[in-house]
Amino acid sequence: MGTGQWMQGVSVIGFALLLCAAGANAQEQPRLHLMPWPASLQTGSGSLRIDSSFSVALTGHTEARLDRAVQRFLRQLSRQTAIPPSAAKASAKPTLTVHTDHASKEVQELGEDESYTLSITADGANIEAPTPLGAMHGLQTFLQLVDVTPDGFTAPAISIQDKPRFAWRGLMIDVARHFIPLDVLKRNLDGLEAVKMNVFHWHLSENQGFRVESKKFPKLHTLGSDGLYYTQDEIRDLIAYARDRGIRVVPEFDMPGHSTAWFVGHPELASGPGPYEIERKWGVFDPAMDPTNEKTYKFLTYKFLDELVGEMTRLFPDHYFHIGGDEVNGKQWDANSKIQDFKKSHNLATNEALQAYFSERIQKIVTKHGKAVVGWDEVFIPGVPKDIVIQSWRGQESLAKAAALGYHGILSNGYYLDLGWPAARHYAVDPTSGPAATLTPEQQKLILGGESCMWTEYVNAENIDSRIWPRNAAIAERLWSAQSVTDIHSMYARLHAVSAQLEWLGLTHRTYYPQMLRRTAGPSASPDELSALRTLADVVEPVKDYTREATAPAEPTSATPLNRVVDAVSLESDVARRFGELVDAFVSSSCRDVGAAAKLRTQLSAWRDNDARLQPLMQRSFLVKEIAATSQDLSSLAAVGLAALDFAAKGGAAPEDWKAQQLAVIGQVEKPKSQLLVMPAPGIQRLVEAVAAGGSCAASK
Amino acid sequence: MGTGQWMQGVSVIGFALLLCAAGANAQEQPRLHLMPWPASLQTGSGSLRIDSSFSVALTGHTEARLDRAVQRFLRQLSRQTAIPPSAAKASAKPTLTVHTDHASKEVQELGEDESYTLSITADGANIEAPTPLGAMHGLQTFLQLVDVTPDGFTAPAISIQDKPRFAWRGLMIDVARHFIPLDVLKRNLDGLEAVKMNVFHWHLSENQGFRVESKKFPKLHTLGSDGLYYTQDEIRDLIAYARDRGIRVVPEFDMPGHSTAWFVGHPELASGPGPYEIERKWGVFDPAMDPTNEKTYKFLTYKFLDELVGEMTRLFPDHYFHIGGDEVNGKQWDANSKIQDFKKSHNLATNEALQAYFSERIQKIVTKHGKAVVGWDEVFIPGVPKDIVIQSWRGQESLAKAAALGYHGILSNGYYLDLGWPAARHYAVDPTSGPAATLTPEQQKLILGGESCMWTEYVNAENIDSRIWPRNAAIAERLWSAQSVTDIHSMYARLHAVSAQLEWLGLTHRTYYPQMLRRTAGPSASPDELSALRTLADVVEPVKDYTREATAPAEPTSATPLNRVVDAVSLESDVARRFGELVDAFVSSSCRDVGAAAKLRTQLSAWRDNDARLQPLMQRSFLVKEIAATSQDLSSLAAVGLAALDFAAKGGAAPEDWKAQQLAVIGQVEKPKSQLLVMPAPGIQRLVEAVAAGGSCAASK
Repeated sequence: MGTGQWMQGVSVIGFALLLCAAGANAQEQPRLHLMPWPASLQTGSGSLRIDSSFSVALTGHTEARLDRAVQRFLRQLSRQTAIPPSAAKASAKPTLTVHTDHASKEVQELGEDESYTLSITADGANIEAPTPLGAMHGLQTFLQLVDVTPDGFTAPAISIQDKPRFAWRGLMIDVARHFIPLDVLKRNLDGLEAVKMNVFHWHLSENQGFRVESKKFPKLHTLGSDGLYYTQDEIRDLIAYARDRGIRVVPEFDMPGHSTAWFVGHPELASGPGPYEIERKWGVFDPAMDPTNEKTYKFLTYKFLDELVGEMTRLFPDHYFHIGGDEVNGKQWDANSKIQDFKKSHNLATNEALQAYFSERIQKIVTKHGKAVVGWDEVFIPGVPKDIVIQSWRGQESLAKAAALGYHGILSNGYYLDLGWPAARHYAVDPTSGPAATLTPEQQKLILGGESCMWTEYVNAENIDSRIWPRNAAIAERLWSAQSVTDIHSMYARLHAVSAQLEWLGLTHRTYYPQMLRRTAGPSASPDELSALRTLADVVEPVKDYTREATAPAEPTSATPLNRVVDAVSLESDVARRFGELVDAFVSSSCRDVGAAAKLRTQLSAWRDNDARLQPLMQRSFLVKEIAATSQDLSSLAAVGLAALDFAAKGGAAPEDWKAQQLAVIGQVEKPKSQLLVMPAPGIQRLVEAVAAGGSCAASK
Repeated sequence: MGTGQWMQGVSVIGFALLLCAAGANAQEQPRLHLMPWPASLQTGSGSLRIDSSFSVALTGHTEARLDRAVQRFLRQLSRQTAIPPSAAKASAKPTLTVHTDHASKEVQELGEDESYTLSITADGANIEAPTPLGAMHGLQTFLQLVDVTPDGFTAPAISIQDKPRFAWRGLMIDVARHFIPLDVLKRNLDGLEAVKMNVFHWHLSENQGFRVESKKFPKLHTLGSDGLYYTQDEIRDLIAYARDRGIRVVPEFDMPGHSTAWFVGHPELASGPGPYEIERKWGVFDPAMDPTNEKTYKFLTYKFLDELVGEMTRLFPDHYFHIGGDEVNGKQWDANSKIQDFKKSHNLATNEALQAYFSERIQKIVTKHGKAVVGWDEVFIPGVPKDIVIQSWRGQESLAKAAALGYHGILSNGYYLDLGWPAARHYAVDPTSGPAATLTPEQQKLILGGESCMWTEYVNAENIDSRIWPRNAAIAERLWSAQSVTDIHSMYARLHAVSAQLEWLGLTHRTYYPQMLRRTAGPSASPDELSALRTLADVVEPVKDYTREATAPAEPTSATPLNRVVDAVSLESDVARRFGELVDAFVSSSCRDVGAAAKLRTQLSAWRDNDARLQPLMQRSFLVKEIAATSQDLSSLAAVGLAALDFAAKGGAAPEDWKAQQLAVIGQVEKPKSQLLVMPAPGIQRLVEAVAAGGSCAASK
């Protein structure tokens, strides 16, 4: 997997993109929509035709899972091409041969061999892999190579040798703040398989819900979930579904905080007096388990947890068991005199020390049941047994610190999908960069990988796919591909293609959007009105990070409808990103690129006129009315851009006071309204600054 | 249900549309998106707010089906509004009370009382119905009334008294030419419920497949279906699903023609020597059952059919059993000397007489099993017992003729969804118009209703929803609403709203389209390229009626991929329809409406320039390349339109030779290429003719 080889691959992509931009001969080079980018590839000449005679043969080690993977592959191939699966029997010579050497572990383990090779010629294709895990990855790579060409559907001649950089490549989904039904999880597992992620971290308990059926302690789910929980049969079904796709399932039971929903049925576990209700709001709350009540209550905490962990470790076969451990504010502990006494008598000076005591006890329970602990970085206490995995969410420092002390870790800081970052920002976060860059190679090996995280305060079954995809594919690439694969333009081009392909898996990350906008506009909205709404919605994004809570018009709860424009729009505006690229192209031409100027003018005119087009809908729908100020902002912003283009056309520098006025307008626009950001603002600011700098506008960039 | 009352309702709609067109105060009148339009309604003042406290109470007769209907209603209400179902218990005062007098029949019967009343005030809503059938219709009407307003989601104050005009309102789906999976059928049943259709006619057997598991004669489905059939459990499940939605399921076993797939496992049933294979092509084929082999073969035809019909009538509880009977070409009968002998010895002069003999025998078998026969109009023989229902597909004449002789009938001629007609054309077909208009009122009562038909030569699971919806809603209205409800503008406005609403049921009639276009373009197509493809695709339609077969580039079969542009585009172009309306508005202003002229110019310029935009994709994708001529046609056509606008702007008549030239261009464009029609052509022809007529251009309309 030499660096030179995949760089060769990257440059092929770059070349194809250049050709495409120039509009010439783009079809002569195969476009490779691979994501994650393989460890090594060499392109060949010619291509393999995909038609109804396509067939697959399995050789070497076989198992039912591989048969199912091939069936799934053929269904997906048929969806991508609309070529019906052949009704005829398999031909003598298969189109694709998949050779697998031996079985993988019965329960998928961290660090199993996932490598594979894939070679395609005009005559056929071969996948070879040590285990089914690699074979399945190879099938996904093949699917990404299928493209429409002048000669029909084909896959280009290519030779790929591939394996992951990190062994732990996961997605966490919080199913507690908003319940996410099983079928939605399943299609997201399909998405994980497509981008070669291998861990589904299932955040199953929270203040807002305990989502697992417990046969030992049924009050946990019957009283703690509003009836929205997974039965143990459903969980076994999902685990089997994940295993079929080479994905481990790591359950999380968040303790001792984030556990109000447990206390509805079991108030005796809490550190403060009950009764408790399922939490409906968002944030960090006071209730926490009482780490000290070993002898006080009828249900002894540790016996309870021992039995629950026992039940759940039997239900979830993975070697790792996530105990949460984050965000205990200590208020209930401080208010409980018995706990204070316990701290004194056990020399636990701080609440952190008390939590460390709790974590240690839990870790022993988990270990006793044959599993290893994963926990958020709060649980890391130097000196604990080494089979713990630290999930770093507050910063990359804790990851580096743990590794320096010989502990395993995975990175989630920088991969929080709910914060609304652009894919490029997640893509720039590397588990072994930043504080981890100075670790020794041996220490760096302790960094197992990372996990993207989908917290669901503002996410439900309807919009979750769009909050995960396509951006998660960029994180998947970061965790699979070489550290030096960092070209943003190539990433976005491939992300665009992967996003289209993910649709064939049934992910709704694109289809939900026009439908949600139509709900916003009402069934009687005309096509022109909908188009005006879409023009605006296409260039706004929800406020970032944790600003949504801070700017909420009313305190949001789990009963708050997610039907506003902010719930519908993409977390990353493609239109705004491309507009910014066009501004940069114009500015770097010293404002002389007439074609770019014309395109900018067309776009800006449409935005300027859009507020007027949107007026009728605003008068009819409270959901559209809410974004009236944002709509005005887009028009104002576009007027600024058009004025800048007028100056650029005249030549010469724009007056300083004009520039100041325009920047003031942009400054006003950049203040979020109705929790939305108008994303073309920075691009227009660059345009204004360049124009103000006059003929040498490129210099101002 | 006085005519005056619903006319009042129609005029409200018309009024709202006018207001909307004028862009003023449109929100002051409630827009009623009801389809089918109720028998009678009166609007009130105020509206009922829909929020998370919404609750439903059932009174009077209750049954589990009604509980499920309410749960389904609440789920759908929650989808439409994104207001989560309340986690709290039902409040003391329900928002909506549904009162049902008594049970409906255990097996739903033709002509049961489906009436209901619905009243909504600001304080609450009431549905009253004699039976669950009416109650469920009332719930659907309520869902159609929910709209987004300046004050949130509301339903307007209204009083509705409603019942259907016809008792038999059905949709037929052919699941044999392309197999349609159960989940696709189910979501279409949801659609039928939404538009109050009450019959699902399941066309289960064909030359191309026998789609039902037969335990008596398993070779029928094992050898006759490529493994694509419904198990009896699945069928019972679908029937229960339909009953839950007030829908009867009428199975069709097409005999004695259209039955090649039966003969794969049972060649002894055929009139010609075997062996037989499942037919892969489309059309009318020679194989037909042998009506004469009663004593010749081991499996006696009638004993076979007796046992099969016995099995199937036990499986399908509906009173009606469809025996097909269409399109027997008689060639196998002519070629079989034994059959010729039989005809002579039985005084059967023609093959029609032989088929009549067969039909009579089958009818006796069906009757023996306690059911009544439905058949395509070929089976109608004056003198047969009166409990037969004639399904008229070849013309309305057979329906009228049968009624004149005292026979029941349903109309499908004019309701063939696969022929690609615009909704307005289907909408204009009335079961009691045309030849039936001269029947006596007593005779007209024999006309039970009608069925839309979805034949699936060019339809599969991916695009079937788009081939049925939204146009089927217009047919549903024709069969439910008063004969005088005929306003096309109102129909299209409501169809647009209903179409949006059907999406919340999971129908994919809109979402499939961008996805299929993306397949056509390939995953690497840029947004601008996709936009160019969509601009073209939005204004073309597949060739109509049976032209597709005649113009096919290669003989189509069931293995032909349905991945071409012709498979993706809508059967009725909304964009072209609205363009035509704009042309008419311009022309009727004597070409003086400057605003309309500007809009036309914008649209035409985009079309003129689109061919150039589409070039890069044409070079890359064989599926886009296929429509190169159509793309050129749209540009040429737009240039003609722009030239006409130039003349109109100058004033005075355009020269005759110019007109002739333009009409020649339009004539060329109107010749279909790649099986596509360029739909703006007639509008542009009207524009050219008006402009050529000069200042008085309105006169030429």
